[in-house]
Amino acid sequence: MSYDTALTVFSPDGQLFQVEYAMEAVKRGLCCVGVRGKDIIVLGVEKKATSKLQNVKTIKKVYQLDNNLCMTFSGLNADARILANQTRLQCQQYKIYYEDDPSVDYIAKFTSQQQQKFTQRGGARPYGISTLIAGFDNQNKPKLFQTDPSGACSEWKATSLGKSAKQVKDFLEKHWREGLHEKDALLLTTKALMDVVESGNKNIELCVIKKNTCWFLSEAEVEELTKITAQIQ
Amino acid sequence: MSYDTALTVFSPDGQLFQVEYAMEAVKRGLCCVGVRGKDIIVLGVEKKATSKLQNVKTIKKVYQLDNNLCMTFSGLNADARILANQTRLQCQQYKIYYEDDPSVDYIAKFTSQQQQKFTQRGGARPYGISTLIAGFDNQNKPKLFQTDPSGACSEWKATSLGKSAKQVKDFLEKHWREGLHEKDALLLTTKALMDVVESGNKNIELCVIKKNTCWFLSEAEVEELTKITAQIQ
Amino acid sequence: MSYDTALTVFSPDGQLFQVEYAMEAVKRGLCCVGVRGKDIIVLGVEKKATSKLQNVKTIKKVYQLDNNLCMTFSGLNADARILANQTRLQCQQYKIYYEDDPSVDYIAKFTSQQQQKFTQRGGARPYGISTLIAGFDNQNKPKLFQTDPSGACSEWKATSLGKSAKQVKDFLEKHWREGLHEKDALLLTTKALMDVVESGNKNIELCVIKKNTCWFLSEAEVEELTKITAQIQ
Amino acid sequence: MSYDTALTVFSPDGQLFQVEYAMEAVKRGLCCVGVRGKDIIVLGVEKKATSKLQNVKTIKKVYQLDNNLCMTFSGLNADARILANQTRLQCQQYKIYYEDDPSVDYIAKFTSQQQQKFTQRGGARPYGISTLIAGFDNQNKPKLFQTDPSGACSEWKATSLGKSAKQVKDFLEKHWREGLHEKDALLLTTKALMDVVESGNKNIELCVIKKNTCWFLSEAEVEELTKITAQIQ
Amino acid sequence: MSYDTALTVFSPDGQLFQVEYAMEAVKRGLCCVGVRGKDIIVLGVEKKATSKLQNVKTIKKVYQLDNNLCMTFSGLNADARILANQTRLQCQQYKIYYEDDPSVDYIAKFTSQQQQKFTQRGGARPYGISTLIAGFDNQNKPKLFQTDPSGACSEWKATSLGKSAKQVKDFLEKHWREGLHEKDALLLTTKALMDVVESGNKNIELCVIKKNTCWFLSEAEVEELTKITAQIQ
Amino acid sequence: MSYDTALTVFSPDGQLFQVEYAMEAVKRGLCCVGVRGKDIIVLGVEKKATSKLQNVKTIKKVYQLDNNLCMTFSGLNADARILANQTRLQCQQYKIYYEDDPSVDYIAKFTSQQQQKFTQRGGARPYGISTLIAGFDNQNKPKLFQTDPSGACSEWKATSLGKSAKQVKDFLEKHWREGLHEKDALLLTTKALMDVVESGNKNIELCVIKKNTCWFLSEAEVEELTKITAQIQ
Amino acid sequence: MSYDTALTVFSPDGQLFQVEYAMEAVKRGLCCVGVRGKDIIVLGVEKKATSKLQNVKTIKKVYQLDNNLCMTFSGLNADARILANQTRLQCQQYKIYYEDDPSVDYIAKFTSQQQQKFTQRGGARPYGISTLIAGFDNQNKPKLFQTDPSGACSEWKATSLGKSAKQVKDFLEKHWREGLHEKDALLLTTKALMDVVESGNKNIELCVIKKNTCWFLSEAEVEELTKITAQIQ
Repeated sequence: MSYDTALTVFSPDGQLFQVEYAMEAVKRGLCCVGVRGKDIIVLGVEKKATSKLQNVKTIKKVYQLDNNLCMTFSGLNADARILANQTRLQCQQYKIYYEDDPSVDYIAKFTSQQQQKFTQRGGARPYGISTLIAGFDNQNKPKLFQTDPSGACSEWKATSLGKSAKQVKDFLEKHWREGLHEKDALLLTTKALMDVVESGNKNIELCVIKKNTCWFLSEAEVEELTKITAQIQ
Repeated sequence: MSYDTALTVFSPDGQLFQVEYAMEAVKRGLCCVGVRGKDIIVLGVEKKATSKLQNVKTIKKVYQLDNNLCMTFSGLNADARILANQTRLQCQQYKIYYEDDPSVDYIAKFTSQQQQKFTQRGGARPYGISTLIAGFDNQNKPKLFQTDPSGACSEWKATSLGKSAKQVKDFLEKHWREGLHEKDALLLTTKALMDVVESGNKNIELCVIKKNTCWFLSEAEVEELTKITAQIQ
Repeated sequence: MSYDTALTVFSPDGQLFQVEYAMEAVKRGLCCVGVRGKDIIVLGVEKKATSKLQNVKTIKKVYQLDNNLCMTFSGLNADARILANQTRLQCQQYKIYYEDDPSVDYIAKFTSQQQQKFTQRGGARPYGISTLIAGFDNQNKPKLFQTDPSGACSEWKATSLGKSAKQVKDFLEKHWREGLHEKDALLLTTKALMDVVESGNKNIELCVIKKNTCWFLSEAEVEELTKITAQIQ
Repeated sequence: MSYDTALTVFSPDGQLFQVEYAMEAVKRGLCCVGVRGKDIIVLGVEKKATSKLQNVKTIKKVYQLDNNLCMTFSGLNADARILANQTRLQCQQYKIYYEDDPSVDYIAKFTSQQQQKFTQRGGARPYGISTLIAGFDNQNKPKLFQTDPSGACSEWKATSLGKSAKQVKDFLEKHWREGLHEKDALLLTTKALMDVVESGNKNIELCVIKKNTCWFLSEAEVEELTKITAQIQ
Repeated sequence: MSYDTALTVFSPDGQLFQVEYAMEAVKRGLCCVGVRGKDIIVLGVEKKATSKLQNVKTIKKVYQLDNNLCMTFSGLNADARILANQTRLQCQQYKIYYEDDPSVDYIAKFTSQQQQKFTQRGGARPYGISTLIAGFDNQNKPKLFQTDPSGACSEWKATSLGKSAKQVKDFLEKHWREGLHEKDALLLTTKALMDVVESGNKNIELCVIKKNTCWFLSEAEVEELTKITAQIQ
Repeated sequence: MSYDTALTVFSPDGQLFQVEYAMEAVKRGLCCVGVRGKDIIVLGVEKKATSKLQNVKTIKKVYQLDNNLCMTFSGLNADARILANQTRLQCQQYKIYYEDDPSVDYIAKFTSQQQQKFTQRGGARPYGISTLIAGFDNQNKPKLFQTDPSGACSEWKATSLGKSAKQVKDFLEKHWREGLHEKDALLLTTKALMDVVESGNKNIELCVIKKNTCWFLSEAEVEELTKITAQIQ
Repeated sequence: MSYDTALTVFSPDGQLFQVEYAMEAVKRGLCCVGVRGKDIIVLGVEKKATSKLQNVKTIKKVYQLDNNLCMTFSGLNADARILANQTRLQCQQYKIYYEDDPSVDYIAKFTSQQQQKFTQRGGARPYGISTLIAGFDNQNKPKLFQTDPSGACSEWKATSLGKSAKQVKDFLEKHWREGLHEKDALLLTTKALMDVVESGNKNIELCVIKKNTCWFLSEAEVEELTKITAQIQ
């Protein structure tokens, strides 16, 4: 049990407990989904208000990092905001240094390195979030990356984090195919989320990332999509 | 039990105990209420003197942060004063940098980030307060935000913190409606607080925030309101 | 029990034990009393020599902070001297920056903030004193503030700290009335202290704060007052 | 048991437990293989996707450090990326200082020194990786080095790290011979890895380092090699 | 028991254990005595050699801080030397800043503040000494101050520290009277010490502080005084 | 048991446990031998490969520090490399400052001081090596020094460290005599090592230090010596 | 037992355990002796080789600090070298600042202050040595000082440290007399040491300090003295 409190030490079988406990915080987080299409990536995330009086519309769980770079996450909200702000700053610095937009690979690696730092040095806990980072690489191909509290960074065609992530991944493995167009990618993302959000909760945030732009779907558009997916089943 | 003393580590199931214990300090604090109206926000908070000799009139539990930005809280008084002063300073800096008033969104996020910092790094405990921050956004719409010891930040139509917060929230969910005018917002706030303050204790501080101004109700005005709400029931 | 040694952490029910233990040090301290009159505040404090050879006359437990700003305390003598010196320095700095005397509100808040700092950061214990700070506000009204190890700051009409503080407060609640003149305020203060000091111990320090001045009563004056109060009973 | 948490102390029999636990993390890592040939070194490493949706093609476990200097590893992915980046930086600095490429000896020693640092000073855990570093020495001879979490650095003709390392080493001891040509070195590396990767998993990354260049084999080339080795058996 | 090791925390009943343990070190120290006369202060202290070969004559336990400022102590010798040197430096600095000698009040407070610092901050133990500081105040009156490990500072007519301090104080309470002349003050000091030093041990250091000077008594003078006091009894 | 984890404290009987545990790491290290001759010193050390594939030839366990200054060691390989590099740097600095080669006394003391530092200050463990340092003093006499984890430094005519050190020392005490010529010193060193290396393991590194030069024996020369020593027995 | 690990805290009865444990390290050290003569001081110290091969002649346990200032010690060799080097540096600095040689009083106090520092602040253990420092004071009188791990500093006519110190002191108390000439002081020192060194061990280092010079006795001279003392008995 003493391994728990010593922030950065290995256990006798070579594990870093604090990192694995942070993964638990991720698994307790609300579900998020990323789907890569032909020239598009769609990020979707469940939002939950604890009361009717809380303003769900104003909760943002997808952070725009740059013109066409977005991030969503599962885990501790407050940690995500901090990490997103650090990454936004890095995007700005990259532009000033190189007079070019950073690629998604660069930013995904930067983000995961920030997370790794908090797993090796003492005096701070790891970040309690996993992220999905979507954008375009140097060849203008759409890319979807996942980063973890351990600092790991991997690329995915489509994936899911947080509560029910396993169930959603199974769904995506069955239904994802190469070259999805915008409409299909949106429907797949919506359907994947609708299967796991608590019944009656239709608060979903959807974000579309294209080559030179990205936008959030309006409430009406989201509702339209949830209706369609409900019929599909 | 050893999780308690290691300031910033995760427990095996992904929780941060110090943050949850700080939430307990919030729940032991006196009740505060925020209500958003049409072009107005009302903040109300219970004040309690420990003795007849203590000067309740001079106890201020609503901090004016800027021209039309106010904050109230539940939890440790001394922590609130420190956090309010930091936020006031940030308001001044914002004005010097941007020659404009900061929006309530900006200040609410700033405040919650200050709180998050004390949950990740070692060597200090989290702030023992939750806050309500009221003001206007960039579109001049009234907004009410809540920040927590975890660094979380959420927007509400109306909400309550501290002792009896749950009971007050239930009351607000039943009676709050969109577009309340000043009088109604004040009555709703007063009624919500009067239901939970200890019997005989009529020390309530009420603050009204409007677009370009904010003011505290006089004792006479507060007494008038408490009389009216007493009759309503 | 492990909460005790971790300087600044919350216990599971949201308490800060070190702050509460510091309050115990205050309760073990000798009694001090503050009484607000019409245009006057009187501070009184018990002094105790451990031996006939100790020079009670030279023990000062009321610190003059500025022209008409005084502080007394209950708790650890050495801590009080340190805190008084910090506050005196702040008074001087205020004058240099603003070319005006600091008000008692400003100084009371400054003092309580110094005390709060030692409750949140690790590496130091809280101050083991509560203080009474007396002076005049911006409207030239007399004011009496109390600050605690937690960093709390509150205003009082009349109050008492330290050993027997509860008994003295009950006495003050019964006998204090608005608008006391100098003589009455002095008699009330003396009487309140005489009831709780150990029998035979007549070492009391009395300080009168008026608008542009403050002075300490001579031994003869103190003795005169103790005689009068003895007769009153 | 208390030896585990004190980062850098010796146990009574002269062992450093944290370093040995880090070796466990290495042993849990996926297998990597290095084979030295006549004028060539081949690095091979197993890649495993946790899901069909993860993009195995984009997982890079061989890092190119310089023109003809490559590194692979077994252990924590995030640690490897950090260490590789530090080493790349050192390669660049060497070139700027000495206007020459660093030799593989120099870089292997640099890497192992970075690892040693984290075993002697407190406040950080050792790196959870062992590395294979391949390149050419000052006499243009191909060299293969291994570095460990302890900071140890040794030269090998052919070796293997991670899961099943012992089994692969036995295989290499039997089949490695001096002066392997490119084709034979590649087949030996592939065969060594194919024997231990989980059945059905054909995700292998192969990298060839020659005097003035290095390249990664295409998927087609890798598949061709795996087919040939399958027939050999 | 855990209170002991946490350097600066309060125990549940408001005590600082490390400070009280330092008082124990003082009580184990050799006895010292201070006596205030008409225009004179006498400091006396017992010296003990652990062997005939140790040069008692060269042991100095009364430190001259300034022209007519002296300090003696009970407790840890090494701590006293450090504290005396700090105070001497402060005397020099005072003269450079103010072109005047520091008064004994100023220096006594400075010394006790140095001692207080080590009771509030972590990372160091309190000083294990109590001191007697003798000199003249701003009205050229002789003064005798005592400072303690807690940082407390008090004025005395005559007092004693260290082993048998209680017994010596009782003696002084009986025999001290206002306005002692040099001879009488010396005899009183000598008599007080002779009663408690171990039989046969006549090693006493005596120091006389007058307005513009101070001197140590020669061995012959000390012996003369011990003879006289022996007869008195 | 608690003495083990507190890096630099004394145990009640005046021992430093961490230093003694580091000595255990030395005793587990492979054996090294130093022999002083007439105008020569020979250093010999056992090398062990963990596998046939490891390149024993390239393992260097004797570090050349300067033109005619060499060091070998028993204990942790990675620590030795760090300490050797620090010492090499010091050699270079010495030359720059004094335009002369450092003597072996100077360098041996420097090395042992580096080791002492890690035994007194907290936050780091002692070095897990003992070293033999060979070179010439200011009178051009050959010298052989030993340094230990404690920072101790002593001069020897011939000595041995690591596994079987005691057995080898007994051998050297019997056979060493003043004024050995190169051939005899080499044979004595080889014989001493051959008696304790594991049977069949003939990997020995031999280094000869003369006044203005030093060299490593070739494999052929080493094999020749091992053959001769085998016959001697 | 927990007092042991907390470096600088007092135990409940006012003791500093780490300092007392360091005294144990001193008592385990080899014996050293200092004898003051008429215009001379002699320092003698036992040297012990752990093996015939160790070069006892080159072991120096008396450090020359300045022209006629020498130091010897009992305790940890490595600590002594560090402390001697610090003191030598101070001697040089003194000369540069004051263009005069430092007196032995000054240097003895400096050395003991260095030792005191390590008993009050956390993060380092006390020095594990007691020292004898010999030289001349400002009146050109020979002086012999002893400093301890506690930072204590005392003057002696003749004394002894380390193993058997008590036995040697008893001998010195019997035989030391004022005004010893060089020959007698040397014989007394030698005799004192010879009585306690292990039988057969005749390795003694002797150092004579005179007004403007100091020198070490040659082996022949030491042997001569040991022969004479053997006869005396």
